[in-house]
Amino acid sequence: MMTLTKNKYDRIFNFSAGPAALPEPVLEKAREELLNFQGAGMSVMEMSHRSKEFDGVMENAEAGVRQILNVPETHAILFLQGGATHQFAMVPMNLYIPGKPVDIINTGVWTKKAITELKVLTEYNVAATTEDEKFSRLPLQEELKLNPEASYVHLCSNNTVAGTQYKTFPETGNVPVVADMSSDIVSRRLDVSKFGVIFAGAQKNIGPAGLALVIIDKELAERCPATVPNFFQYRHHIKNDSRFNTPPTFGIYMVGLVMDWLKEQGGLEVIEQHNETKAKVLYDLMNDFYTCPIKEEDRSLMNVVFRVQGGNEELEAKFVKEATAAGLSGLKGHRLVGGLRASIYNAQPLEGVQALADFMKEFQKQNG
Amino acid sequence: MMTLTKNKYDRIFNFSAGPAALPEPVLEKAREELLNFQGAGMSVMEMSHRSKEFDGVMENAEAGVRQILNVPETHAILFLQGGATHQFAMVPMNLYIPGKPVDIINTGVWTKKAITELKVLTEYNVAATTEDEKFSRLPLQEELKLNPEASYVHLCSNNTVAGTQYKTFPETGNVPVVADMSSDIVSRRLDVSKFGVIFAGAQKNIGPAGLALVIIDKELAERCPATVPNFFQYRHHIKNDSRFNTPPTFGIYMVGLVMDWLKEQGGLEVIEQHNETKAKVLYDLMNDFYTCPIKEEDRSLMNVVFRVQGGNEELEAKFVKEATAAGLSGLKGHRLVGGLRASIYNAQPLEGVQALADFMKEFQKQNG
Repeated sequence: MMTLTKNKYDRIFNFSAGPAALPEPVLEKAREELLNFQGAGMSVMEMSHRSKEFDGVMENAEAGVRQILNVPETHAILFLQGGATHQFAMVPMNLYIPGKPVDIINTGVWTKKAITELKVLTEYNVAATTEDEKFSRLPLQEELKLNPEASYVHLCSNNTVAGTQYKTFPETGNVPVVADMSSDIVSRRLDVSKFGVIFAGAQKNIGPAGLALVIIDKELAERCPATVPNFFQYRHHIKNDSRFNTPPTFGIYMVGLVMDWLKEQGGLEVIEQHNETKAKVLYDLMNDFYTCPIKEEDRSLMNVVFRVQGGNEELEAKFVKEATAAGLSGLKGHRLVGGLRASIYNAQPLEGVQALADFMKEFQKQNG
Repeated sequence: MMTLTKNKYDRIFNFSAGPAALPEPVLEKAREELLNFQGAGMSVMEMSHRSKEFDGVMENAEAGVRQILNVPETHAILFLQGGATHQFAMVPMNLYIPGKPVDIINTGVWTKKAITELKVLTEYNVAATTEDEKFSRLPLQEELKLNPEASYVHLCSNNTVAGTQYKTFPETGNVPVVADMSSDIVSRRLDVSKFGVIFAGAQKNIGPAGLALVIIDKELAERCPATVPNFFQYRHHIKNDSRFNTPPTFGIYMVGLVMDWLKEQGGLEVIEQHNETKAKVLYDLMNDFYTCPIKEEDRSLMNVVFRVQGGNEELEAKFVKEATAAGLSGLKGHRLVGGLRASIYNAQPLEGVQALADFMKEFQKQNG
């Protein structure tokens, strides 16, 4: 029999697409220090962002990200207020060169949202889209209509709603790549030097909502015209070490703790292997009863999207209800596409995935 | 003798200007629920912003702000990612009408920062400034050169660096007032209906950094031209009940807890009285040894700015050092103006203020 709870905190297995599960040891550490951070006599939340104590918090987070992702010195690491949606506007404000349309590869909801801001701010071209195939695969390199004179190419590395993920990134020649990695940052090894900008809302893999991690080629940041409001110019945040204004201090602290946790796990080589193992457990269950609409080589290791009996909504509702009762939460698919979705970011333990797999087998036995 | 610590958590009295002290019961509650929010089996940080549980969190925060500040139905309450600096750009993007320069009353660092964004985005006029008096007082009503055709009037209700605070707000006729209340929001009673926009970075009086509370006249929000990126249009955030994108969920939760705490204290009538009492304890110590450079009627109840022997930097450094050793932290003045500053927002207990007063008397005895 399934148990409702798994540990001393009565926590459940949380498959939410984001905000999403955080590593339990990270939450424990945050709790331990919540009223008094390392003898400072106050919470991290109560601390001046210009204090010596917070300098240490900031350094830990930044050095952690730099080490975990092996970020080269050419690239600055920024912790900004906001999230990916904010970056959808901030990136073109900084990097668009008039007369050089932005290229965007449209692979689902998140690139469509980015397009709504490109429409307001720039000229742009959709270099490829798989919308008429319901985003069930990623465009192939040979399908991309890339303009060698584009300001930059925008792509989304992992699509939480569609359930696709780039395994290798497109070649764009000399045109800088801007990658929205909100949902798979620090989930696998990465050659950061190949990207002009990587941005990520924190709330899937690295911390609480309200913080955007931005990794940016410092030279590229100098492109920004002076007509952009100061707050939106990356260069000011780089120059001020993410303290142009008061940064989201508690979020930065949490990112640092998540980086500490990743190091303890053995870094991205180990995490990547772990994420592959977890995803395989679920994708291996796909058969006639459970179907994954996504082309096999493009399937996301972060968001496993699937249907019951090819889209039996009644059974899917039953699945969600019974799974929830069994302590497996957040499995309903995104409201735009329906179906089911298991989000299994870094913090989802193999134990949780196995509990879900056991539930799925049992559910099939009783309803298949 | 002074004791180093005051309670079971070994916390000190924190006079930081922001991020600043939070009410201890709020932190205790957050800690209690950090790994499992009210039986949901997960932290608030791990919760989908579209879940039923988070709906409750959001409702509690919004209803709390509405009740505490008596916000009329004409005004929307928004919880946005970012802070006041973000609003310095967002307000003119939404409310500036070409040909109708913005009026701004320059009372210190925070209005000067707002001006840097007005410079980029709008035409504007400085309706008054006391910069040549080192911002030691607020401009009088009769000094204001207000344009009845201005898009709006921008002011800062409390100036953390200068140590001034509006006791009554200027009359602006039919021109909407936009007030930056980052450092004195919910510190006293307020007639919200008189303001077009009130915004406040959370990190002084209502929660952790990374969240901006925006209270906005819904009709005024409709002014925004379609050429503004969607993310920066208030109307989208109003329409989506602060969930146009993933909001800073943990911060919103904390704001809700702070509102609960304010209700328990007896609301703004009681808090206002309490803040007056606390400030009086410190201002009553001003004499020949301790001097406050601020005109008496404009002195802030939130940030008590003072000098030792009219600006004896050596003694001031000694004061900070000895105060810190005595468990009184964050008393160094802002780096732009020097001197000393005690920030005594809502969460600063009278006990903390009295401990500081005792220390000040003793310090004067030994050094005066």
